[in-house]
This record gives sequence, structure tokens and C-alpha cells, in this order.
Amino acid sequence: MPSITIIGSGPGGHIAAFEAARRGAEVTLVEKADIGGTCLNTGCIPTKTIKSSAEALETAGNLSAFGISAESGAEGVNFKADMEAVVARKERVRKVLCGGLEKTCSSLNIRVVRGSAELSADRTVLVHTEEGSEEIKSDKVIIATGSSILDLPSLPVDHKHIINSDDALNLDHVPAKMVIVGGGVIGCELAFIYRAFGSEVTIVEGMDRLLPVPSVDKDMSKLIQREAKKHRIKVQLAKTVKSAEVVDGKVQCVLGPSPFVEGAKGDDTTIEADVVLVAVGRTPNTEGLKLADAGVETDQRGWIKADHNMRTSVEGIYAIGDILGPSRIMLAHVASHEGLCAVDNCLGKERALDYSVIPSGIFTSPEIGTVGLSEEEAIAKGIDVRSQVFQFRELGKAQAMGELAGMFKIICEKESGKILGAHIAGAHATDLIAEAALAIKKGLTAADVAHTIHAHPTLAEGLYECCEAWLRGC
Amino acid sequence: MPSITIIGSGPGGHIAAFEAARRGAEVTLVEKADIGGTCLNTGCIPTKTIKSSAEALETAGNLSAFGISAESGAEGVNFKADMEAVVARKERVRKVLCGGLEKTCSSLNIRVVRGSAELSADRTVLVHTEEGSEEIKSDKVIIATGSSILDLPSLPVDHKHIINSDDALNLDHVPAKMVIVGGGVIGCELAFIYRAFGSEVTIVEGMDRLLPVPSVDKDMSKLIQREAKKHRIKVQLAKTVKSAEVVDGKVQCVLGPSPFVEGAKGDDTTIEADVVLVAVGRTPNTEGLKLADAGVETDQRGWIKADHNMRTSVEGIYAIGDILGPSRIMLAHVASHEGLCAVDNCLGKERALDYSVIPSGIFTSPEIGTVGLSEEEAIAKGIDVRSQVFQFRELGKAQAMGELAGMFKIICEKESGKILGAHIAGAHATDLIAEAALAIKKGLTAADVAHTIHAHPTLAEGLYECCEAWLRGC
Repeated sequence: MPSITIIGSGPGGHIAAFEAARRGAEVTLVEKADIGGTCLNTGCIPTKTIKSSAEALETAGNLSAFGISAESGAEGVNFKADMEAVVARKERVRKVLCGGLEKTCSSLNIRVVRGSAELSADRTVLVHTEEGSEEIKSDKVIIATGSSILDLPSLPVDHKHIINSDDALNLDHVPAKMVIVGGGVIGCELAFIYRAFGSEVTIVEGMDRLLPVPSVDKDMSKLIQREAKKHRIKVQLAKTVKSAEVVDGKVQCVLGPSPFVEGAKGDDTTIEADVVLVAVGRTPNTEGLKLADAGVETDQRGWIKADHNMRTSVEGIYAIGDILGPSRIMLAHVASHEGLCAVDNCLGKERALDYSVIPSGIFTSPEIGTVGLSEEEAIAKGIDVRSQVFQFRELGKAQAMGELAGMFKIICEKESGKILGAHIAGAHATDLIAEAALAIKKGLTAADVAHTIHAHPTLAEGLYECCEAWLRGC
Repeated sequence: MPSITIIGSGPGGHIAAFEAARRGAEVTLVEKADIGGTCLNTGCIPTKTIKSSAEALETAGNLSAFGISAESGAEGVNFKADMEAVVARKERVRKVLCGGLEKTCSSLNIRVVRGSAELSADRTVLVHTEEGSEEIKSDKVIIATGSSILDLPSLPVDHKHIINSDDALNLDHVPAKMVIVGGGVIGCELAFIYRAFGSEVTIVEGMDRLLPVPSVDKDMSKLIQREAKKHRIKVQLAKTVKSAEVVDGKVQCVLGPSPFVEGAKGDDTTIEADVVLVAVGRTPNTEGLKLADAGVETDQRGWIKADHNMRTSVEGIYAIGDILGPSRIMLAHVASHEGLCAVDNCLGKERALDYSVIPSGIFTSPEIGTVGLSEEEAIAKGIDVRSQVFQFRELGKAQAMGELAGMFKIICEKESGKILGAHIAGAHATDLIAEAALAIKKGLTAADVAHTIHAHPTLAEGLYECCEAWLRGC
């Protein structure tokens, strides 16, 4: 069995480590920060933990709609997010999960080395630890160092008035007015969270829609823009924040037309905020790795080049996860599967990862689950498709829950009915998308789903109804 | 196109009516009570609507765990279920959905006749309406009259102290002490609801486990018994309520050992309750139909006999839904598919319904989703199986949500890995089961699910992890 050194303990790194160790490899896991990477410490898990607090506050504000009232003497009570307690809960959850990972490492005899890694010749990894340096020689190396927040020179983050998403997960108060620069996944998720906490939120997005990701169907963007409006989140599309200056404790943001949208025009305007949150992108974590010296090729922006077997330009060195850049979809669950794929290849099994069916979850209000092609992507590929939508409000369960916002949309090959894409906005959408992902992965049709009995009353009936309706449209 | 008369507008009846009308048949729908049947008026939808109120009250009682606090001056505020408002909300939801059905009937030109039906020769249906009688002649008749609550002579329901599940959906107060006779699906759902509302609840179940349904895996029963205990619901297994007598406004229930469990013993004991809820079963709605005169055969207990094409013993008369009795699984979504199947057969397409993959949802706390075989059923069938469990608490999303109770369990054919059964207890379980149902319906294996990427962080990852773990156990 080969020895494997894995640099980085995010979802890709630790899943690769677990898999390799379970299969008998001698595994060393190098981590310079907290175990678990971005996902566990400043990404997926912390945001969803804080999102749960936001949802609890929303429920508290809506109890009377469910027939729940305060016992006499406390009518009209208002609730608020106690941010210190919200952040403390997030920290507790984070530590439980970090502790779980550490225990698994220990039970699988994975050696965890704390420090920053440097590649040198012949797959030797030099780790700079607190005590000094350690040289680790192994047969295979997997680079899983991930990505960090991208800073924009025009919006210098001071972590107080101009903050990034890491800061947004550790605020000790709810800002009265917040401007969020970037209406992508992170920007939108945090917009709904802080709006629920009571902030007055404005999202500024350079493209002409929220969630301007090719795989996100435009109908989902429209829906979330409508919901943002209902929640009184202001949305400025096709605008950029040209500058942000702190004056007397407030940030003066100058907005102008976006250079990314053709024909975007209008005069510059200024809006004032207590906090500006910059959520515009990610940058590769390659500092100190000395990739060039080791011969590991990167692209122009610094992301590591690898094939679908996760092999880099250097024999025996693999790369997985965010470090492969946005062309490869920067999502925790993609990194995990890249990790499993890299381990297969390290252990002698030639396997390329199938990137064709990757679901993703967006935790807005309502949440969004999406998998496969958007209608626009399908059309652009020249596929003859027909799509179908079905509204949440038509579901008995949605009515029972009081969760009326949302829709199901499927994109199917017109002739065969093969499902090519599914897009769900609404309660539990990020869970509901799993059935669609399985259907697409296995090449199933709308008829396959429609002929499968779905339990009543559930939200999962929506996918069934959507497929039924698609069939009726034949 | 043949004309079709459908008796009963529950899920089976109205879905059959919609389908037949969409395909061009002339459809008459006869209903003697509210449109929508048990499901919409006294079953699935009302219970889930009230369940949402129970969940809102639970969230209200747990806000501090999420870092949500009352604004100053209102610390330590308690909330309660205002039953009149809870029931009013239920009524609003019910009416919205009834209205939706009526609109669809109208837009599809389905003639709705209000009255009770009587079968006479040659598929003639005599409807006794408020105005008199109407004779409807049609080519085909579908009987979808459903079932009603079974009364036990030993527990005479007075709708005040001794109540049935219909009454439980319309209470104007929260009883201090409630005894629930029957630990099946309805009994368990209402137990968790009223416990959340503040009742002291005791469930008395004649079998040796809660949810004693063959298709519900025993591990789910164990889990729900543990959760009942955590919620301080008392559970008396292998006991029956021998009598219940109202004395001075309280019900004195005499409990004795169950005749259904071998070796059950112990002395009779008496427990006092404000309300006894009887939830022990259903009885066929055949009164007034004059089935025997029409030649429609029933079994000894009065349920209509039909084949898997929904054909009764009389040519041109079909039966669907609860009226087929418990041997055919009395669930709304089964009735709907029986309705679609009956229409296919009415319109000349020979089709038998596939009853092999029927998911079901149980709305306890946590909820349960189940599909396919239980481990016990698989073993009893002599299939060589291996099962695998995965705990909710191992999921990052479950930690983020604070929803730690629950488990995934899959039962797979040992050799092939083909999934034969899936059982999920936990948050969103009734939605999560849909993916497993599709997998079983399409004959997929644990590997098929494990090789499908699941979005992180979601609860749907649990099924993936369970399948992954199953594969590792090979």
C-alpha cells in the first residue's frame, strides 16, 4: 500500500484521508488552520447554523399565524437575535463537528500534522510547524488546500465597517443598514439571514440577475428576486460598488452602472451603510506551497490544473477541491468526490470523475436546489427540450406548513422525456433535489418519476406532480 | 369516450375524475359530504396543518437554544396553543384546498352531484340529493367511498370525554390529561401533537411496539419509543383499555394485558384522563350503496373485493381507495394511483397497479418515512439481506439545524446490493424517502445511490452516507 500525504483537511482532504486510511494506506494529513477547512469553519456549516437561528426568529415573529399566542401579560412580545448567542451556538456546532473529524482521524490512524506545507522534489512535503520543520516523504501527494476570500482593491476590508463573509459569521451585533456587494450564492444567503435578523439590506449585483450562475435556471433568479422584494431586501442589479469610504463610522458607497452588463447606464449614486459586506469571489490557497518549484502547473489565475483523474502535471501529485478553481465547481460535495476519485487513482485504479450530475443547494428564503442543466444551458447546447413548472402552493403539504413560496421546474428532452435538469425553490428544496439528481444520474425520464408513487402529504409530491404535468403536456 | 360516474371525492375519486375528464370522458362525481374526502377534511391535511402549529409552539419554547431572545421586559415568556385559532387555521387551509378541487372540477367540466349514492342494475347510480333523487346512467362506475372511524363498543365515543380522531382535530382546548387508545400511525401522530400543546399523554397499544405495521421496521418503532420517552409521552405496550367510564367529568380507564400479545400479563390498573382518544382502525363506507343488490362482492368485514386492475365482481364497476380495505394499504397516495389505474382500465387500457413500492409518511416527532420491505419482512421472505444504519447526528446539516434525533436504515440484497427497503426517521424524513422510493422502483443498488453526488450540507446526504457505509461493509 502506498503512503499518501494530503495537504488540507477540508471536505476533499479529510474524505480522501478517511478513504485512503480505510483502504490500508498510510496517511498523513497536513493542516495549517482548523481541521475541516472552509466548509466546516467559515462556509457551509457556519452559515447553515446561523440560518437556523434566522429561521427560528422568523417563526417567532409569525407564531400568531399558527394559532400560538403568548400567555397572558406578554402579548405583543418582540424577539431579537442575540448575536453573541447566535455566534456561540455556531461555534459549538463547529467544534462538535471538528471534534468528530479529529476522532475519526485518530481511529483510522491518520497522522495529523499542524503546519503549512511546502512542496519539494520527489513528492517530499516540508511542513513548517510551530516546533520547526518536518520533511514528509510519501508515494503520493494530494493537494487540497482550498480557496480564500477574494479581496477587491476598491473595497478594502477593515473587518469592522467593510467586512467579508468570514466576518459576517462572527458579528457581535445586527447592523442597522447593510450593503452586500455580490448577489451570488454567499451574498444572497447572508442577505436573507441578516434581513431576518432585522438589518435593512441592499444587495448590489454586477450582472442582471441574482444568483447569476449558468447552472441556476433564470426562473429561480426571478423567484428569489420576488422573494427578496417580499422580505424588503433591496436589490440593485447591473450595478457595481465603485468605492466605499468610511466617514464618521458610516460607509458611503458609490454605485455606478456595471461594466459587465451591456447597456447598463445611469448616474452614480451614493448609499450609506453601517456595514458593507463584500462577497465577490474566491482566490486559490497556494501561498507557500512553491508549486512552480515542484513543477505543478497552474492556470493564469493560479488555480491548479488537473485532469478528471485529479492528476496534476507532476506524476504522483494530485489536486482536488476548490484549488482546481471555478471551472470545476467549487462545492464541498464535489471536493469530497474528487477526494474519493484521487484516492482511487493513488491506489492504482484508473477512474475519471463524472462531473455531469452535480446538485447544489442555496440557502436563501426559500431555499433552492438545482441539478443538471438550466433551460438556458440546454437551449444553448442545441438540445430540443420542453420544460414544466409546478407551484408549491398547489401542494397540500405546503398549505399545511404555510410554505407557499416556491416552484418545481424540470427540463426534459422533448422526444424521450429524459430529465436533463431540475430546479426547485421552496421549503426543503435542498433535500428534495436529491431525488432529481438520482433520476438524472441514472438517465431516468419524467415518466419514471411520475410512475413512482410519492407519499402524501409531502413536499416531494411536487417533483411527481411536475413530471405528471410534463407527461400530460405531451 | 365512455361516461364515468365516480362515487366519492377523496384522493382516489377526485384524481380519477380529473384524469378521466382530461382524457375526454364525461365525468360525474358524486359526493355526500365535503369534497376531498377523509384526506382533505379529517385526515392527512388537517393533521399536518395542526402539526405545523405544534412545531411552531415547540420552536417558540426552544428559541434561546438558537440565540433568539425576547426584547427586554419580556424574558421568560411562555407560549400556548390557542386551540380556537389552531383549528381556525386548519379550517382555512382545508377550505383553500376544497376550493381548489371545486375549481378544477369546474374547469374540467366535471359534474359534481351532492348526495348519497345507491347502486342499481346496469351501472345505474341513484343519488339521493337534498332535492330528491337523480338517476345517473353511465358506462363505467368507480366506487371510491372510502372509510370511516371504527367505533369500539367498549369505548363509546361521546365526542366530549371519549373522542375519536375527527374530534381531536376540532378541540376547543388542550386537555390536561389524554389517554390515546391505539399506538398506530394516527394515535402516535396525535400523541406528539397534543404533547407539544402541553397535554400529559399516555398511549395504550395492544401490540408490543408502537407503529406495529409490518412495513415499519422495528428499529423505527424503537426510535419513536425512545423519542416518546424524551418528550415525556407515556407508552403502555401490550395493554388494552378494557373499559372507559366518565365519572364527574373525568374518564376512568381500566387497562389490562393485551390478548394480542402472547404472555402479556399483569393486573388491571386504572388511569384517569380528561379525554380518551380512540384511534383503533377504520371501517368501510358502504352504507346505503346496496352493494349486494348490485352484485358487488365484499369480504367478510365489508371491504370491496377488486383485482389489481381495480375491477370488482361486476363488469364495468371498479373500486379504489380505502374501500378496498387494509390488505391494499389505506393511504391517500395509493388511492390516487388506484384512481389513475381504474381510469386506464375504464378507457380500455389493461393495466394492473404495481403495489410493490409504496412509500409512507408518519408525522411523529421526528417524522418517519418508509418504503419497501422492513428487515423483518425481508428475512421472513427468506431473502439474504444485509442492512445498514446511519445516524442523523453525524450529518453536518442535522447539527446546524439542531435536529439530531433520527436515523437512516437501508435493507439491501446481500449479493447484489439492490435496495429492498429504506426507513428514515428524522427531520424531513417524509420528503427524504422519495429518493429511496425511486431507487427501489427502478431496481437500483446501494452503489447507484453512493455514486450519485448529494449536495452538502443537506439531510439527503444521510441516504448517501448510509449507502456508502453499506458498500464499505462489503
